[in-house]
Amino acid sequence: MTTLTLPMLETYPQPISLDRVQLAATIDILDDCAEACTACADACLSEPDVAELTKCIRTNLDCADICHTTARVLSRHTGYDASISRAMLEACATACATCADECGRHAEMHEHCGICAEACRACEQACRDLLAAMSG
Amino acid sequence: MTTLTLPMLETYPQPISLDRVQLAATIDILDDCAEACTACADACLSEPDVAELTKCIRTNLDCADICHTTARVLSRHTGYDASISRAMLEACATACATCADECGRHAEMHEHCGICAEACRACEQACRDLLAAMSG
Amino acid sequence: MTTLTLPMLETYPQPISLDRVQLAATIDILDDCAEACTACADACLSEPDVAELTKCIRTNLDCADICHTTARVLSRHTGYDASISRAMLEACATACATCADECGRHAEMHEHCGICAEACRACEQACRDLLAAMSG
Amino acid sequence: MTTLTLPMLETYPQPISLDRVQLAATIDILDDCAEACTACADACLSEPDVAELTKCIRTNLDCADICHTTARVLSRHTGYDASISRAMLEACATACATCADECGRHAEMHEHCGICAEACRACEQACRDLLAAMSG
Repeated sequence: MTTLTLPMLETYPQPISLDRVQLAATIDILDDCAEACTACADACLSEPDVAELTKCIRTNLDCADICHTTARVLSRHTGYDASISRAMLEACATACATCADECGRHAEMHEHCGICAEACRACEQACRDLLAAMSG
Repeated sequence: MTTLTLPMLETYPQPISLDRVQLAATIDILDDCAEACTACADACLSEPDVAELTKCIRTNLDCADICHTTARVLSRHTGYDASISRAMLEACATACATCADECGRHAEMHEHCGICAEACRACEQACRDLLAAMSG
Repeated sequence: MTTLTLPMLETYPQPISLDRVQLAATIDILDDCAEACTACADACLSEPDVAELTKCIRTNLDCADICHTTARVLSRHTGYDASISRAMLEACATACATCADECGRHAEMHEHCGICAEACRACEQACRDLLAAMSG
Repeated sequence: MTTLTLPMLETYPQPISLDRVQLAATIDILDDCAEACTACADACLSEPDVAELTKCIRTNLDCADICHTTARVLSRHTGYDASISRAMLEACATACATCADECGRHAEMHEHCGICAEACRACEQACRDLLAAMSG
């Protein structure tokens, strides 16, 4: 699936201070990570050892909300204020790192946790790369 | 970009009454439409004729929220209750049809509205197809 | 706590076809129900019998998302389209009824489920009352 | 309206490291601010001088999403990780400060902007107070 994130950014009618290709890729990674975390929370709920997975579920729920909100903030460019983008990218990198650690603990037992841990790690990196590009 | 939606669904540990490939494709279309609507609302805000686009912006905001919530509901399978999925798919098809009409009115003037109108039309169809599959 | 929902609606600069007091009360009930469902899902995750509560958690998550999105749709009046409001109120009444039933099953064991069941029942009624007012 | 936030927190079955009364009050302020920002964005869209309000609308949309996500994170206590709560409270204080400034610029012209600016300022303070309590 090719998403519409880049085509939409390319038709935004004003200048954007960041590279649109990197920005679109970051938003796609955030949306994908949010989706993976929502699905992982639900898959954990259906595992026989759900009682061992409650912290994983909770962290997935936080991470899904935070990734989604970060994607929305990065999708808006009107009246751009770098401080909000930066603060959300920092919060998102923190949530993704925590969720990657927690899901990683269950990756051998549960394949969905392994996939989700990788998604969170990739998303953390994308957030940090965009933060670096914003400071560059 | 290949999303993680299908891999996550494929590792869900219990039976799912719907076809996982169709379900994953629908979720991806919903997430993509939500992203397009969020971006279209913001692009409209930055157009010189924003005063002509206020209904378009509002409908985009509704459609983004509804598509996102529908994607989340469809991403959960634990304790599945078809009535909630069906009601959200109905609401989402309604919102997408309205948003496609409204964005379509501005497609000649604004390319982002044209792309978004197509995304909404595709998403409306995907919702109706899944509703049909659920009744089948 | 007196919320700002009614003061905000009272300063909306155009006509609204619905009674602003009923509308604000409905939005407040929706926001409160969303909050209760989010908290109930988390409280269930921390119960020793979490394995018995997985359907309750899942339904709480759906209901929280749907109530929140319905509150947002009802908070927007620019370019009002009754069909979207109606479809979301229908979906929300369905989700609240399901969640009230599910939480109600655990109300004797878990006080948070009892409070949440009442919130969902009140929210379902508020949605149906507003639907009736829209048709009246 | 008395919200259910505190009754729900009081029935959470495990210890919470923060004061439940302060926590519930903060969540209520966040939910109320999110609602005010959603309504202010829509009221701005319906003003004759909408072209002067586009930055205000955008900032309202960011602030609504961020306040809502922060309220959700603070409503979860299972597997508590202070770093996520802290990062979201920081991001939320930043967004609220920016939104209060921007809405404040239009408060004389538009009463909804004035109410929203006050809500954002109160929310920023509540976030900073909770951050202080977490470090205390």
